[in-house]
Amino acid sequence: MNVHELILKTRSYRRFHENVPVSAATLRELVEIARIAQSPWNRQAVKFLFCNRPEKNAEIFPLLGWASRMPDWPGPAEGERPAAYILIFGDKEVSKTFNCDHVVAGSAMLLGATERGLGGCLIGAFHKKRLAAVAGLPDQYEPLLVVALGRPNEMIVLDPLGPDGTTAYWNDESGIHHVPKRALDELILGEL
Amino acid sequence: MNVHELILKTRSYRRFHENVPVSAATLRELVEIARIAQSPWNRQAVKFLFCNRPEKNAEIFPLLGWASRMPDWPGPAEGERPAAYILIFGDKEVSKTFNCDHVVAGSAMLLGATERGLGGCLIGAFHKKRLAAVAGLPDQYEPLLVVALGRPNEMIVLDPLGPDGTTAYWNDESGIHHVPKRALDELILGEL
Repeated sequence: MNVHELILKTRSYRRFHENVPVSAATLRELVEIARIAQSPWNRQAVKFLFCNRPEKNAEIFPLLGWASRMPDWPGPAEGERPAAYILIFGDKEVSKTFNCDHVVAGSAMLLGATERGLGGCLIGAFHKKRLAAVAGLPDQYEPLLVVALGRPNEMIVLDPLGPDGTTAYWNDESGIHHVPKRALDELILGEL
Repeated sequence: MNVHELILKTRSYRRFHENVPVSAATLRELVEIARIAQSPWNRQAVKFLFCNRPEKNAEIFPLLGWASRMPDWPGPAEGERPAAYILIFGDKEVSKTFNCDHVVAGSAMLLGATERGLGGCLIGAFHKKRLAAVAGLPDQYEPLLVVALGRPNEMIVLDPLGPDGTTAYWNDESGIHHVPKRALDELILGEL
């Protein structure tokens, strides 16, 4: 699988085979991938907490915002929810700001998930205070990002933008998730 | 090459074989990789400008900040400078904020660079006004990130953190670049 194929397969999955577990060993492997990824100033200020136990997953799930571009969709139904989460925290004893460290880490982990037949979604919209309470960590750790993970249970296709130019993603009648992407020539402003 | 190997090879290279060109076709391929990467809210608000001409590279180079953790190092010497740049801009007509879109795009492009025997560095410290002037684009486009690219001319190794715990990277006498990385168990806060 080349990089283009890898990234093409690494979509934002929001529906999973919830009963297919993701092992702690797999979650560790994903954090190991994040560990060696680039880090601004190499400060490595973000840290990780796993969850793959159904009882705890059920506490995390209602704190998450799903698919802001599909306001009528309430998020994945029971049975299609994530089988695991990796919660990413900024360690305030390492740095006061975290720039995009959590997103770099999360993106790297999703690539590793794809390679393992898994998929996931980076969720930045969540109930921060309540998530911190579920995590039960000292105040030193600020929740920055939730990586929802599982065996994907939806097909996602990239489409060209339609005539209305909207980039909003949508589900068709058969449940296929469509993601409109701008054309390459729209993204390239030119050559110097 | 699996994802762990791919990311292990995707380091922040700052010294290049400046005389090895990076073609416009390659730069387009890298933007194509960024195009299909995930985009928060799928808004796809960042756009790209290439440069692989020595005259223009020479205008861009002095506007860049290099290796903040090695304050005594002035940046790559002549002959070791990037052979190409991809400048990433936020399109203010698409969005007023850009979160980490530019970093997601830049990270994806660096993976594609690795696959092509290239390497690079994401540079967020640059002279914004002067870079915008070199780019010559309308005010609609805000410069967010510079991706420096070329054929790497340095060896980079990841080390465990030393006894002093510093994460500052450094060059040894033979020019090998050392990047101290925290141990996996330091990054994993636990399991819920």
